[in-house]
Amino acid sequence: MVEMKYKTRTGCPCAYFLELLGDKWSLLILRDVIILGKQHYHEFLESEEGISTNILADRLAKLEKLKMLKKTRDPHNLRKNIYSPTEKALDLLPMFIEMFIWASKYDLYTAVTREHLDRFRGDKSSYIADLRAKFN
Amino acid sequence: MVEMKYKTRTGCPCAYFLELLGDKWSLLILRDVIILGKQHYHEFLESEEGISTNILADRLAKLEKLKMLKKTRDPHNLRKNIYSPTEKALDLLPMFIEMFIWASKYDLYTAVTREHLDRFRGDKSSYIADLRAKFN
Repeated sequence: MVEMKYKTRTGCPCAYFLELLGDKWSLLILRDVIILGKQHYHEFLESEEGISTNILADRLAKLEKLKMLKKTRDPHNLRKNIYSPTEKALDLLPMFIEMFIWASKYDLYTAVTREHLDRFRGDKSSYIADLRAKFN
Repeated sequence: MVEMKYKTRTGCPCAYFLELLGDKWSLLILRDVIILGKQHYHEFLESEEGISTNILADRLAKLEKLKMLKKTRDPHNLRKNIYSPTEKALDLLPMFIEMFIWASKYDLYTAVTREHLDRFRGDKSSYIADLRAKFN
């Protein structure tokens, strides 16, 4: 379990965000769940960034504890778990979109397509509503 | 200098963002510069989160290298430097605002006032324009 350093509880929302999610992997796992629709442990493990299994287990436990992920039994395979985002996690969508727009502007290697970017810039709320609808 | 691990260059904008700024301190320094209007080394050092002097020096060098901060001589004291945000840094403002709104909803200790939150939610673009104007 990642140690939560509550000494940075200065009241700054930016510090709060970083305290919870500023560890390089938590946000990528949330991206996998919210944006890419991944649900299973092995799917997270297969993400291109190459998370190790011990870090993945640790971060999943942390995100559950932070009430950002829910773990339930997979009805199709009761030995497996399904991870799904909570409201607290889905509320990160507007921030994710602004992060994508920024990175797309400055990262030469971005994989965000022009079509998606146009959608982000044009009508963020419909994009967010569509993604949210998948988890209802 | 923080080692840049370009192996996470998967084309994902989220991975790019984290690669550059997902280290707990870089975003707080950018917050100090962009939102709080801090300019000097000693001002960053005084921030409540308690950054150490060696980490601060490292992150300032990194942010300069990433072309997110500009370092110039302070005209009032030529032995001091002034740090100011580049366009690349100011372009993070929409993401900062969404981060603030999210954290304010879930952090019991948030110091963001109702007045500011209403402004973020109501007219983000005028808030951003006002902050940008300070750096022109």
